[in-house]
Amino acid sequence: MKTTSLETLSISQSPGLLDARKQDGLDPLSSIGDLFDLPPDLVYLDGNSLGAMPAVVPEKIQEAVTEGWRTGLIRSWNDRDWHILPLTLGNRLAPLMGANAGEVLVVDSTSINLFKTLSAALEMRPDRTEIVSERDNFPSDLHIIQGAITHFYPQHKLVEGKESDESILELIGPSTAVVTLTQVSYRTGLIRDMERITKEAHRAGALVIWDLAHTLGAVPVDLNAADVDFAVGCTYKYLNAGPGGPAYLFVADRHITDAVNPLTGWQAHADPFSFDTHFKPASNIDKFRCGTPGVLSYIALESSLDIFEMVDMETIRKKSKRLTTLFVDLVESFCNGYPLQLASPRDSNQRGSQVSFSHTDGWPIMQALIAHGVIGDFRAPDLLRFGFAPLYTRYEDVWLAASMLAHILESECWKDPAYTTPKLVT
Amino acid sequence: MKTTSLETLSISQSPGLLDARKQDGLDPLSSIGDLFDLPPDLVYLDGNSLGAMPAVVPEKIQEAVTEGWRTGLIRSWNDRDWHILPLTLGNRLAPLMGANAGEVLVVDSTSINLFKTLSAALEMRPDRTEIVSERDNFPSDLHIIQGAITHFYPQHKLVEGKESDESILELIGPSTAVVTLTQVSYRTGLIRDMERITKEAHRAGALVIWDLAHTLGAVPVDLNAADVDFAVGCTYKYLNAGPGGPAYLFVADRHITDAVNPLTGWQAHADPFSFDTHFKPASNIDKFRCGTPGVLSYIALESSLDIFEMVDMETIRKKSKRLTTLFVDLVESFCNGYPLQLASPRDSNQRGSQVSFSHTDGWPIMQALIAHGVIGDFRAPDLLRFGFAPLYTRYEDVWLAASMLAHILESECWKDPAYTTPKLVT
Repeated sequence: MKTTSLETLSISQSPGLLDARKQDGLDPLSSIGDLFDLPPDLVYLDGNSLGAMPAVVPEKIQEAVTEGWRTGLIRSWNDRDWHILPLTLGNRLAPLMGANAGEVLVVDSTSINLFKTLSAALEMRPDRTEIVSERDNFPSDLHIIQGAITHFYPQHKLVEGKESDESILELIGPSTAVVTLTQVSYRTGLIRDMERITKEAHRAGALVIWDLAHTLGAVPVDLNAADVDFAVGCTYKYLNAGPGGPAYLFVADRHITDAVNPLTGWQAHADPFSFDTHFKPASNIDKFRCGTPGVLSYIALESSLDIFEMVDMETIRKKSKRLTTLFVDLVESFCNGYPLQLASPRDSNQRGSQVSFSHTDGWPIMQALIAHGVIGDFRAPDLLRFGFAPLYTRYEDVWLAASMLAHILESECWKDPAYTTPKLVT
Repeated sequence: MKTTSLETLSISQSPGLLDARKQDGLDPLSSIGDLFDLPPDLVYLDGNSLGAMPAVVPEKIQEAVTEGWRTGLIRSWNDRDWHILPLTLGNRLAPLMGANAGEVLVVDSTSINLFKTLSAALEMRPDRTEIVSERDNFPSDLHIIQGAITHFYPQHKLVEGKESDESILELIGPSTAVVTLTQVSYRTGLIRDMERITKEAHRAGALVIWDLAHTLGAVPVDLNAADVDFAVGCTYKYLNAGPGGPAYLFVADRHITDAVNPLTGWQAHADPFSFDTHFKPASNIDKFRCGTPGVLSYIALESSLDIFEMVDMETIRKKSKRLTTLFVDLVESFCNGYPLQLASPRDSNQRGSQVSFSHTDGWPIMQALIAHGVIGDFRAPDLLRFGFAPLYTRYEDVWLAASMLAHILESECWKDPAYTTPKLVT
């Protein structure tokens, strides 16, 4: 059951490896990769779950803690504009999603933000009772919808389509209040046609909420060009804001007046520091705030946005497609004969920045890969999932990962009991 | 308009100052104060708004960032038990509120947690329609109740008592579903009789939710002895968890099965990493989780809890009463003749760890105080508010603050236009 090591693979002088290195040499984003701090002995293909750390983060957080908290103390809420971080960071995030300043807020968690926007949308369509989503949407999105129906919208029902856009479009009709979908599937990476679904939803008189968790930072998206109503997502994946970084929400400018946030914490008040006991919502997107923002979690996002402001999404997307295509090609070549099935779209235009392969023994195979220094993740029931963060993933990483996967399948080392023990977070 | 400086006051050899220093020398908590890092040139009396930084925080956060995020990457959710931080920190916070392990969760914001527990409580009393609170409760608490009624409980109404416990008790009756109050007033520091109000609420068949934002870490509280049903609060005041640190909620063990969280994000699922698309709540307090926790904001709380675990609440309370009493005495002596009115209870047993004085020109007076190195805060319409965090506030600070307030009133320097400009966060 002896496999090889990443180091052995790295010095192998294999033609494929040398070719990958050549591509890294030509990569316009290679200098951007140097702005991230990644351990040298890893191939990290899980930036779609927790993005790598921008190298300046320790320094920036240290500064926020020692100068902001320790020295500035309460004064830093004013002096460092901590109080308006949800809006200032929202304004900086907006261009990545084709939104305008004033349409995006960085706040709370994706689940909370979905609840807020779902409630806002349902109240804007009071005579309609159906919420359209996808059976295999990210569980939290479905859970939030289920909870909202159970507790607050008992007349409503959730109707679920399948992975194809057609199966969703079929469900949209005169009873549809809201269509809420994740644009890029967390399972397969399939990209939905946001523009088409949004248009059909609007034609039927419904509103849309898009979850961009697996889109933003890896796939270009233009919410206003697609006439999207609401969007939500997290910042700890391709946006590299660190573990549990704050989430965001988008409300199209045309809805800011009518859309109402039901979670009316004081930070959503028109003038929170008047300490007015009667709630009066802010007239701008601040109305979608709730409680006090967790400042430390915003600092890392600032560092990541500094990097995104140096690049353009088309360059990112181009590299993303090349990385994922190379991975599909190499795995299918190196692992030929093993029962791995490509679970992602073969056409890179239809694929986000991840590649999933199904394998009945996906769980122990992924554990073995991780133990050998190639970090992807497993998604039940059988998906080996690999994320390619174009800002810092190298073509060499792609080659190393595919080679290691082949070695692990060949050696059958994944059958070792060490790799079959379940873990809490997968 | 010349006032004095903190430094001049510090070297004044005034008998009152020397006496305060003597008390510091005898203070059993004086060595605990050394565990906090405060700027030397300040008298910080706003720990009830943003607590001071435990000295180890920079090192701990640095470690979490570089070893946890940068090196461990996604693996740290398991290897560092990040995923269960809401429960493990809840279990460590529990003894400070007389709760058992499994009854407290550190998660989301106070406002979100109030929404969750309010909804849970209202569903447990389906035939009752009144929510009892206080007219001068912290605005966010009232806003959350108002929003919940407007959007989800249109049959319910909010009935508001005044500051006295009697005015609350009068409102409790057969229609009362929930009584929700802040135990220690953010304005005056008045402590409500939690045991009595809870007992009367229960006698009437209602449930209670206590907001402990201005209690925990400064005033001993025993939720289970008082038979409390639910509680919420924040960690960034006396609990020193840093700007916007995560909030907490308490659910009495007897309600864990029946109480239902309506914000059903995936982290509330019985088995989140099964990626089950049908929501099934956890059977323990994890059912009150929602989205992914912001890890960095939890790290500082860990450092603060390390300190709380070295002291006992009775020692803290004893010092708290002495600090606030000394401040009342000194201000009333030094500022005799100026129109300052004590707005807090005169009896230290009825007072939390803060002292408020009203003054028509409270706003510019507080700005002048801050400019002279004494940091308290202002609460509309006319309160000068001073918080005394017993873990690190010294008797000398009390003397310096009272002396500086007297000098500022005497010099009338607060009339300088520099002190009349409003700021965002007060």
